[in-house]
Order: sequence, then structure tokens, then C-alpha cells
Amino acid sequence: MTATDALPKVLERIDRDLQASLDRLFALLRIQSVSTDPAYAPQCQKAAEHVAVDLQSLGFDTSVRPTAGHPVVIGKSGNGKAAPGGNAPRVLFYGHYDVQPVDPLDLWQTPPFEPRIKTLDDGRKIIVARGACDDKGQAMTFIEACRAFKAVTGTLPLDITMMIEGEEECGSKNLFGFVRDNAAELKRDLALVCDTGMWDAETPSITTSLRGLVYEEIRLTCADRDLHSGLFGGAARNPIHVLADIISALHTPDGSVAIPNFYDGVHELPDDIKADLAGLGLTPEKFLQPVGLKIPAGEKGRMLIEQISTRPTAEVNGIIGGYTGEGAKTVIPGKAMAKVSFRLVGAQDPEKIRNGFRDFVRARVPADCTVEFGNFTSAPAFEVAFDSPALSRARAALGEEWGKKAVTVGAGGSIPIVGDFKTVLGMDTLMVGFALDDDRVHSPNEKYDLKCFHKGIRSWARILAALAG
Amino acid sequence: MTATDALPKVLERIDRDLQASLDRLFALLRIQSVSTDPAYAPQCQKAAEHVAVDLQSLGFDTSVRPTAGHPVVIGKSGNGKAAPGGNAPRVLFYGHYDVQPVDPLDLWQTPPFEPRIKTLDDGRKIIVARGACDDKGQAMTFIEACRAFKAVTGTLPLDITMMIEGEEECGSKNLFGFVRDNAAELKRDLALVCDTGMWDAETPSITTSLRGLVYEEIRLTCADRDLHSGLFGGAARNPIHVLADIISALHTPDGSVAIPNFYDGVHELPDDIKADLAGLGLTPEKFLQPVGLKIPAGEKGRMLIEQISTRPTAEVNGIIGGYTGEGAKTVIPGKAMAKVSFRLVGAQDPEKIRNGFRDFVRARVPADCTVEFGNFTSAPAFEVAFDSPALSRARAALGEEWGKKAVTVGAGGSIPIVGDFKTVLGMDTLMVGFALDDDRVHSPNEKYDLKCFHKGIRSWARILAALAG
Repeated sequence: MTATDALPKVLERIDRDLQASLDRLFALLRIQSVSTDPAYAPQCQKAAEHVAVDLQSLGFDTSVRPTAGHPVVIGKSGNGKAAPGGNAPRVLFYGHYDVQPVDPLDLWQTPPFEPRIKTLDDGRKIIVARGACDDKGQAMTFIEACRAFKAVTGTLPLDITMMIEGEEECGSKNLFGFVRDNAAELKRDLALVCDTGMWDAETPSITTSLRGLVYEEIRLTCADRDLHSGLFGGAARNPIHVLADIISALHTPDGSVAIPNFYDGVHELPDDIKADLAGLGLTPEKFLQPVGLKIPAGEKGRMLIEQISTRPTAEVNGIIGGYTGEGAKTVIPGKAMAKVSFRLVGAQDPEKIRNGFRDFVRARVPADCTVEFGNFTSAPAFEVAFDSPALSRARAALGEEWGKKAVTVGAGGSIPIVGDFKTVLGMDTLMVGFALDDDRVHSPNEKYDLKCFHKGIRSWARILAALAG
Repeated sequence: MTATDALPKVLERIDRDLQASLDRLFALLRIQSVSTDPAYAPQCQKAAEHVAVDLQSLGFDTSVRPTAGHPVVIGKSGNGKAAPGGNAPRVLFYGHYDVQPVDPLDLWQTPPFEPRIKTLDDGRKIIVARGACDDKGQAMTFIEACRAFKAVTGTLPLDITMMIEGEEECGSKNLFGFVRDNAAELKRDLALVCDTGMWDAETPSITTSLRGLVYEEIRLTCADRDLHSGLFGGAARNPIHVLADIISALHTPDGSVAIPNFYDGVHELPDDIKADLAGLGLTPEKFLQPVGLKIPAGEKGRMLIEQISTRPTAEVNGIIGGYTGEGAKTVIPGKAMAKVSFRLVGAQDPEKIRNGFRDFVRARVPADCTVEFGNFTSAPAFEVAFDSPALSRARAALGEEWGKKAVTVGAGGSIPIVGDFKTVLGMDTLMVGFALDDDRVHSPNEKYDLKCFHKGIRSWARILAALAG
């Protein structure tokens, strides 16, 4: 029986087994696996072992692997060899068992580690607990889908490797080394991540790109000391003026970045994808009003959703120079500093962007002044090719489950581990998640819609079947 | 006998009496009249009384007038009525008896309040003590000139009012009110101040203008909170960019200020004055190299000496926004702030400059952002008319004493009391002083060249005679 043939029975089993799925999720939610606080280290260990035991019961060859911090749970369903002749990808599923701290505790309406179902006034049922969504609830949608396949067909539909880490909420600082050290073991054909959100409560979404980041610091020196503006004003170069000229020159009047060759490697979106994005109707009002703004500041002629996800940016993140205290001081400072970052997309080369920026700055520094640079990040963008077969299959599967076409969206920020999957393990990642904007992730009263949990499990079952082909 | 007729004998007397003049200066220098430190208040009182007794001996009707701080010494030689028919101006002489603190004391080669004459390797004799120059030595040049006239002619050559204050080194904070409260008593035809310097050791100088000051703060708000540059970058307005655009637009590429009507009231220098200034040969190298710069940053086509003294400026004195600590933070700040000041010359109207600047800024703030302003100073420039008879006479007198034409220079900064003499008392000020660039005013080992002291007394004698006409 193929996975596709088995799918109706698998979905039926998921519906029938929902209460048991919830019980299993609740058991995991009760473990206080707060990764940032060393006092909770035993609970993190307990959560890792709990997940490992569960995966073992599904037929995964499981181990709890120590790191310098909290352990990583690894589960392998196959021998890691490519299926001969098949076009079913071997997948690496990534999730995390650790959760954010719960403070301020007094803002929780019910204790964060005592999960419960709550019915809202509009009839929606929600799961309330720390980690209900991020990422225990989301990771469990995938695990429960695997469980249903195993129950119905006696096996998993694909060669699946599980990697469930315990330090995502404190920067995954030991995971990068772990991935490098275990590259051969972890390298599969495709990574799957369930840690993102839906477009809205009705519209499933696949995150197909993440912007890269180049973060630079400019340290400018003009005079070798601070000067009195009465004595020197008019003759001495003011580093704040020089910085302002540079920053002002960074963008053209139409909002695009003025550094030569900056747009090398930036691809235009395919027309159908662009039409999909337009159809989402993310107006400037809807996006900017909640933070007190109205007018999009980015490239003219681009939709706001492009500006924040599929187009590169240049932003000054900080600036300081001269006297910034109360009142007046008539100083021309000797030095000024700015932090400037670039969000990258497509095939923009971080090294070239960095060098292009530095040349752009140097060309604008007067001959008697000096500039030094600092670099904090240089990470390329990540994007899944729009013609990827896995992406098409996953989109179709999601569309069937939700009765609505799944959108592909770009995330404006970076998820470093996804970049590592690409650069270290050479594989693309499909990010599919069922979080909603009102899930209060990282905040008190975190929740996950019961519908998202249930249909999330069904979605993964459909995606697994689709990928199995 | 007219003052002019008496002048040769007065000068002779000055030369003969030099050691006694020095003794009197030393007696004043020994009083530790540090005005900023309350512990020295009795010494300030003592210095005031010392000066008062001395002035009384010259025939001044003298009083030590209390203020909320240290007292002001007032001495009047006449009844304050204009001399009938005469063209001799009644003058108000301003100086101060207080001195700067002496720390760091261990850098003094000899104790700061034990004045002495030291002979340098090049043969120059210098008076070393705190206040040797600023302003006890300088003020005494005027008092000793008066004394010589009194000794030779039995009277003073002009109607002179003395105002010697004791809070100049801590901001003259009670003097402004004192001048306002005693305006009728202090209003004369001309003020004389001996608290400035020579152009160089051979070239006497009269400071004929002081730049005014408008000091503004721009507080810009875009989003109502700090935003994540990954999520909002490309769509949300960045207040640092807005500020940079404004600052960059403040100057044209030729270095002039771009605010409409900014140059209203700025006069061109007369050709002869311009030629005098050019003759001083103040090259960019000479002026800027000591602070590590080379290239003048001001208006193209203007001499550096114009840029720093007779031309108006716009300078950003401080800027801050976003993240300015170590490392990287991907923030788009909600707010940014800059402090901007303008040095004014001629008849530039501080109120119009301020309003013109605010309009200039507002025109560049996007409609969904807000700007607030703060103002810390609005003071007009001060300048003596180049055709003032008193100026011509004083220049000629200085030229005769030093054997070199006296230059008229503009000071880049403000001396607020001189502005008050103009605005409150309606009189111009001639600033004539004999300080040299190497006098270490405000620093350890302050000195005053013996030659400056001696020829300073002679200079004032000549100026008094010239003004007496």
C-alpha cells in the first residue's frame, strides 16, 4: 500500500486519535524545559528523554546526544541511504523541546505548565500553556502524523531523521557545531521545520525565503579631539555631518539602495507568486498602523509585502556622536559612529555587499578624516527555488487540507539554522507551521488553536504522503 | 593740559613705575579668588575689597556691591552726565577679579598663588601665577594706565565707570541681572573690555565682532516603539534616516547653509578689512593641523579666518538614535534626536533663523512622523561698526604703541555680557587684550608676558588719550 493509498485511513485515524494526541502533547507541556535558566537543566534533560522515548515507540532509532548545553534528540527511521530509484526525498525534521521563560508569572491566567483546553467566547478552542505553540505543539503535529502512519501502515512513509534540540530559545549556540560535527549523519535531501506561522487562520503558508544579514559598524574620526564650535565652527570637519551625508546617500529618492551593484543577485518574483502575494491584501494601513505609522518607507513601486520579505534593505540601527545629554554643549565632536545593516535576498553575496558598502563609505570620507569598520554578521539569504518539486507537492497537500491555496511567503528576518542546513548540509528547508498571530508566543498565556493542532497533524500527513509520491 | 598733551609724560611715568605696577599686580595675584569653589568665597570678597580700595585711591567713587554670588566692584570717576559738547565718550570698563581653579596642582612648577617673574631661555620675561593673564593681569593694564594719568595730570582723562565682577569663571550668572537692575548707572557711551588676546606677539588686535548663537534640539518620532529590522525593515520609516536626510540637506555642496533666507543680515566685510585679514596669513594648515585636520570644511571661496569668525555656521553638536552599545542589535528605533546650533553674524535675526530652521526640518519630516523642538539659546551676533570713531582711534593708538597696524578680528564664540551691553545698555564694546596663545589660560602654569603687561598699560594710556580726543 502506498502512502497516498493509505492517506484516507491515516487521516481518519488522526481524527479518531485526537484526544490521545492531546494527552501526549500535554504530557510534554508539563515538563518545565526552560532552556535559558540553568536551574531548569534537569527538566530540559527530562524533556529530551521524554521525546526520545516517544520517537523510539514510533520505530525511530533514537539517541539523546549531549552537547556543551542541553542535549539534542536524534531519531532515525532508515539507514540514511537514498532510496534506490525512488523520487521520495529523505527528510530531516527539525524542532525544539525547549521553551521560553514564563515571567512575568502573575500575568498568566492559568499556570503555564498546567496545560488545558479553553473555549473562547467565539467558540474557538485553544490549548493554553508555555510551549503550546512554540515549539512543542508545532513539533508534535509532525510527530503525531508519523504516529498515525505507523499505526495504519505499520511503517513510516519516508526515510525520516528527527533532530529535536533544546537550545532554540537561547540562540541554538551548540547546535551549529553539532550540525557540523554530524554532517554526514544529518545530511538528507530536504529539511522540514514546523516553527513558523500561517498567513491567517484560514490560509496555510510555506516560508520559502529568509533574508540574509550583513551588519556593519562605521567608526569615523575627524579632529583628534572634541572642538569648541565657537572657535572651530565653520572650518573643522564635523563627523556627524559626514555620517549624515553617507547615510542620506545610502538611498535614492525612490527608496532603493544606492550602493553600486547592490541589487546583483536579487531575483524578480515569478508573476504567479507575485499575484499570490498581491492577493493577500497586506495594505500599509494593516501592517503599519499597529506601530503608529502609515506610509511605507521602502522602494517605490513595490508592494509592502515585498518590501518586508523579498526585497533587500539598508537600515541604520544606531548612531551616536557629540553631546547627547540634557541642554546645550557647543561641541564639534572628533568622532561619530553608526551601525548599519543590510537584509539580503536571493543570491546577493554578503562579502560583495560588505565590500561595496565600505567602498561607498570610504569614497565619502574626506581625505583628512579616517574610518574604521566593524563587522558583526555576514549571512546570505536563504530561498527555496519556486520550481522545487517538494515545494509544489507540499503546497498542493496544504491546499487540500485547508480548502485554500497555500501561500509562499518570505520571512524578513533570519533563522540561522536554516542557513546552516543549506551551507553545511547542502539541503533546502520547507518551513511549514500553523501558528497564528495571536498565539502570544514568548508572552504570558501562550496558546495554540486546537484546530491548528488537529489540522496541523492532518497537514503533515498529507505532506508526507505527497512527498512519498 | 589735554590728555594727548600729557601722553608723553604718562608713558614715561608708566615705564618708570613698572616695578611698582608689578608689585600691585602680585598683591592681587596672591589672593586666592577662585569663584567656582564655595570654600574660596572669603578670598573672593577679599579680592573685591582689594580692588575697591585701589580704585578709591585713584579717585573713583567706589562700592563693593553684593549679589546672590560674589560681589561686583563699581567705581565711578564722574557724575555720569555726558560731557557738554565734547566728543569724548564716557566709558564703562569691564573686567573680573575671579580666577579659574588651579587643579591639577601637581602640574604647576611654582605655587599658583605665589606670583613670580621667570626668564625663559629665549630671554622673554613672564609673570607666572593663576590669573597672571586671565583676568587680573589684563584688568590691571587698564587700572595702571588710569593711575599714570592720575599721577601726571591729577585727574582721569575720561569719565570712566569701572565694573569688576567676581563670577566670570563660573558663567557670570548674577551679572546679567545686576546690569539690568543698574542699567541707568552703568549705561555709558562705550564699553571697554580687556579679556581677549593679541593676534600674535607682535600684532595688536581689537575684537570687533562676536558670533551669536541659536541652539536647537530636534526630537523625531516615527513608529511608536522600537521595531525589529527583520520584520519591519523595508517598510517602517527609520528616524535616523530622516534625521540624516535633514542634516545632509542643511549644507549645499559648496559648504553654505541651505536654509532659505539664512544669509539675510550677513554683511560683506569692507575690502580693506578683508585685505587686513588676508594679510594675517592664517592658513588651513596652521589652524587645523594642531587638531589633526587639513581641509577647511566651511564655505568654499571664503578664507579660513572668515569661516571661523565673520561667517555664520550650522553645526550638529550631537546625535543619538537606536542601538549604540557593543555588537549588533537589529532594531529600527522609534525615536532619534539631534542637537543643532547656528553661529550668527551681523544682523541675522535669531528668531527668524530659528523659525526658518524649524520650517526646514518640518518640510522634511514624513506625514506619519512627528517632530518636537527644544531651544536652549537665541542670542544675536555682536559687531562694532567698522566706521565707529572709537574703533578708529583705538586702532591708531595701538598701531603707535606696537609699531604695527592693529587688526580687527571677529571671535567665533560668544561673550554673553558684551551682548547684554548692546541689548540692555545700548552700547558698543571695544575688546582689546594682550593675551598670547601660549598663556595657558585655565591651565597649570598660567603666564602673562611682562612685555604684554608693560605695553598693555602703555596701550591703554594711548587709547584713553585718543578717546579723550
